[in-house]
Amino acid sequence: MKYALHNGKLIPEDQALLPLRQREVLMSFGVYESLKVRGGKALFAEDHLERLYESTRILELDQPFDESHFLRGFNRLIEANHTEEATLRIELFGGDTPFYYAFCSPLPRYPAEYYSEGADAVSFPGERIFPEAKSNCLLLNYMARREASRKGSLEALLVDREGRVPEGARSNLFACRGGRIHTPGEGVLAGVTRKHILEGCREVGIEVVFEPLHLEQLLRGHFDGLFISSTSMGAIPLKRIDGIPVINSPEGRSRLISLTSRLNALLADREEKVLRS
Amino acid sequence: MKYALHNGKLIPEDQALLPLRQREVLMSFGVYESLKVRGGKALFAEDHLERLYESTRILELDQPFDESHFLRGFNRLIEANHTEEATLRIELFGGDTPFYYAFCSPLPRYPAEYYSEGADAVSFPGERIFPEAKSNCLLLNYMARREASRKGSLEALLVDREGRVPEGARSNLFACRGGRIHTPGEGVLAGVTRKHILEGCREVGIEVVFEPLHLEQLLRGHFDGLFISSTSMGAIPLKRIDGIPVINSPEGRSRLISLTSRLNALLADREEKVLRS
Repeated sequence: MKYALHNGKLIPEDQALLPLRQREVLMSFGVYESLKVRGGKALFAEDHLERLYESTRILELDQPFDESHFLRGFNRLIEANHTEEATLRIELFGGDTPFYYAFCSPLPRYPAEYYSEGADAVSFPGERIFPEAKSNCLLLNYMARREASRKGSLEALLVDREGRVPEGARSNLFACRGGRIHTPGEGVLAGVTRKHILEGCREVGIEVVFEPLHLEQLLRGHFDGLFISSTSMGAIPLKRIDGIPVINSPEGRSRLISLTSRLNALLADREEKVLRS
Repeated sequence: MKYALHNGKLIPEDQALLPLRQREVLMSFGVYESLKVRGGKALFAEDHLERLYESTRILELDQPFDESHFLRGFNRLIEANHTEEATLRIELFGGDTPFYYAFCSPLPRYPAEYYSEGADAVSFPGERIFPEAKSNCLLLNYMARREASRKGSLEALLVDREGRVPEGARSNLFACRGGRIHTPGEGVLAGVTRKHILEGCREVGIEVVFEPLHLEQLLRGHFDGLFISSTSMGAIPLKRIDGIPVINSPEGRSRLISLTSRLNALLADREEKVLRS
């Protein structure tokens, strides 16, 4: 039997059901996190919980569960399911009786060529509300990802009304140019993998410029190349946006692939450190 | 026992539960309607279904249930629960296996003085995504209504970044001036009560001007007065926004109250017509 976690208690997974009549369920007043489980450990769990609490602060979603409660629960869930590798998702709803469920799903896998050649993305107009909170109000992300999958693309990049691209529907966005990395500094979800990439850049001396990225720039080859990041993806270079190549030259391409390979190695090192700890 | 409706079938209401792991549930890919039941009849059910289908068209949410299916289901639900008066809510989710629940809740009641004196509102910055679709992605509406209730106000008026007020968190907005009614013509939810108000105005010769309403105008007394509408409220005049009186004179006040009383009488007539049919 597979288990889910309900407010710290193990329950059969098929009993993880949402009470339809609860206002907070009907109105998407909730936040979530997706953690990567490897070697039976929830990686960077403290980072994810820090962001979970940041999301609750932004939405003023009061809830009683502290970090050690969640960490114990994650371990209990992973042990009960004999999980080695998985995505562990936690869904926390607010209101008068805050509650959460956590459950494990298979870890998404991406083709090796995404890492060696780049993946495609589409652009999708739309702005997330409360973009710095990882909320359950995901209709825009759903529509954007559906559009990407209809076009055979990995990701949809959200474009605001000023033509800026703060982030993807499930990833953060980076551009590189002449050895530097450019990424939007505000109005985006503070991705845990983004955080580790930025820390890794600092450690190895890659300069990071925080600035808005405009779709026009991205399509016109202003940058050597682009990549996206997420917990499940790590760093994946982009090949095309809306069918338009976004790698500006063969040299740009090698610089991009060597950069994302280096970042993925940095991320793997950080994961290994957690696994050995 | 109370019943809910699940894809046309009666089920015990406490079994109306959402499968947490379904992507469309997690990502708010759903639409809803709230109908008023009076005298054991779901009022203006065809109008609500028309809007439900419009919402599904906007979101490209494919679903197999036709109008006569829903109408039969509503009757079955009302009969099973011996419902005389209620709000009947339908929640329809999309994806590979579209499904819906419908259930009845008590009809909200509003104090008589809201109708005779006006009610208070707060302003709340934020823009709904896909504003013409009545989607389940209601986080903004939740936050706005919470702010209103913290301030002891009936409603929160959503203010976009240009300072316009397209609608309330659960109502449409109207202003009146010199015998005319002004209301935003686009980027708002096509309220069923709004529709009946506009039709009623046409019948009795009240001119309607479709134009954006700016918060500045509303607060500066540019209009004689303001009112909001919804299925459960009918037409309710506004007394103050953010504590600032929005009725511009004693004469404006009598014109406003006499107008909303007239509109509520028109709405009551239309309800009676359905009940007698």
